[in-house]
Amino acid sequence: MTRTDKAPRFQFPAGSRVGIVAGGGALPVEVANCLSEQGLNPFVLIVAGESSPDSGLDRFDHDVLTLEELGSLVATLKRHRVTHVVLAGEIRRRPRLAAMRISLGLLAIVPTVVAALAKGDDGLLRVVIRGLETRGFTVVGAHQLVPDLVAGEGPLTRKAPAASDKANLDAAYAAAKAIGGLDIGQGAVAIGGRVIALEGIEGTNGMLERVKDLRQHGRLAGKAGGVLVKCAKPRQEMRADMPTIGPQTVELAHAAGLSGVGIEAGRSLVMDGPDMVSLADRLGLFVVGLEARDDHG
Amino acid sequence: MTRTDKAPRFQFPAGSRVGIVAGGGALPVEVANCLSEQGLNPFVLIVAGESSPDSGLDRFDHDVLTLEELGSLVATLKRHRVTHVVLAGEIRRRPRLAAMRISLGLLAIVPTVVAALAKGDDGLLRVVIRGLETRGFTVVGAHQLVPDLVAGEGPLTRKAPAASDKANLDAAYAAAKAIGGLDIGQGAVAIGGRVIALEGIEGTNGMLERVKDLRQHGRLAGKAGGVLVKCAKPRQEMRADMPTIGPQTVELAHAAGLSGVGIEAGRSLVMDGPDMVSLADRLGLFVVGLEARDDHG
Repeated sequence: MTRTDKAPRFQFPAGSRVGIVAGGGALPVEVANCLSEQGLNPFVLIVAGESSPDSGLDRFDHDVLTLEELGSLVATLKRHRVTHVVLAGEIRRRPRLAAMRISLGLLAIVPTVVAALAKGDDGLLRVVIRGLETRGFTVVGAHQLVPDLVAGEGPLTRKAPAASDKANLDAAYAAAKAIGGLDIGQGAVAIGGRVIALEGIEGTNGMLERVKDLRQHGRLAGKAGGVLVKCAKPRQEMRADMPTIGPQTVELAHAAGLSGVGIEAGRSLVMDGPDMVSLADRLGLFVVGLEARDDHG
Repeated sequence: MTRTDKAPRFQFPAGSRVGIVAGGGALPVEVANCLSEQGLNPFVLIVAGESSPDSGLDRFDHDVLTLEELGSLVATLKRHRVTHVVLAGEIRRRPRLAAMRISLGLLAIVPTVVAALAKGDDGLLRVVIRGLETRGFTVVGAHQLVPDLVAGEGPLTRKAPAASDKANLDAAYAAAKAIGGLDIGQGAVAIGGRVIALEGIEGTNGMLERVKDLRQHGRLAGKAGGVLVKCAKPRQEMRADMPTIGPQTVELAHAAGLSGVGIEAGRSLVMDGPDMVSLADRLGLFVVGLEARDDHG
């Protein structure tokens, strides 16, 4: 959160109303707080079943939408006079098509959404963003609203990677980029210079739990250490689904016996930064921003 | 097991003695039986902790070696007058370096083995094979001894992939090749046209268990079907660690709710073929040999 140039904070024109489509995790809360502190009064559209009930998002002007009610997204945003939309937080579930409420708005977008679902996450997010823009909304990235959350280059923690961590960081970074190129996941774990786990739909936390189990079952040959690397996909849509870490990532990395975490600088978000750093310092882990790789559009 | 040209069965010169370095699974047993049926009397070096006690390998002339006794491999093989070596079966554990019995033979190979371990599985196997060849052994692939186990192209089961399985087979095949190129794993699972799980050190069975859990926890959006694809790494050493499936693969794929399994023809082994096919037929799964991709050295 230091050395890399941050994008300047997005400036909203007078009369703007920001709508936050809020998935799980801390990001929507950080975005809402930040907008509120700027005197903007955000409208939060909570995606049912993703956000935790104690997220505090209900302090803001809000509404709740199930994934299956996706068809009324535009109408709901318009009703609240939203001009700018932020997609923030994880959406882990996929809509059950059978349970979707049929509406004209939905029928219009079904073919593109189905095509997008077939292309994976990124494809879907691109279609949603394009759809919102076609309907007159400006879609803004969370990183443009709270640029302080964007990871900078270099260690965030007291501890920096040791020389022995370098091979792990390199191997995991290369693997995470490769599976990102296939639009599968954003993370990989390397131990002993070798990638041993790749993130699929189970997510980063699920992958770390797996590494913990593998270690407990003696499947890692008693090898100490290892790293998690998370990075943006080569064609990452930066206005949605940026790679994110937080205190829980550090906690699970520690439980999995890893020595640290690497994230791609400028293209990853750090949630609850101070808490995460003090936890990592206490547990003796490093968290490091790695130089960004590959061209991004 | 039909349409692809098989390599002809390897012909041993008179006076040959075949040593089988036996890891887990059915392959070492199949190889030993096959050699025995040809009137050759194989010597089986059972890797402790990998082979199941009821494997039946102790019916053959045999010895047991722990991974940590790797240094005496050559001496043991020489003592039993072995001329040809087959590496067969999975070795899931990695040697605990701290527990290795120090010997002159071991000290000589430590630097290369350490370098190889750092390169991953394939690197290690290449070094072991080269080391054995330098010491005068001929290293033979299991697929050259029991060519009937090599998967052919096309469906092995009554059921063939449906048109709707094609996108899954394509996506999983591409992903499995990509991670194979990074020497990480050999398998991937795609559901709804999207890759949702990649094989790391947990192995194919571990990955399938994970998919089962994800489905039970509603993380697959109620999507039916999906496929597992296993294929050779782009630079696969064919004399070790060929991708392998068997009845357990089909059983776990079924438990994970998949509709079938694809394997790379000519570069994958099918264990207990008749049992596997009848199980798949009973459960309504397809198993299909997919046209081989990429050049192999």
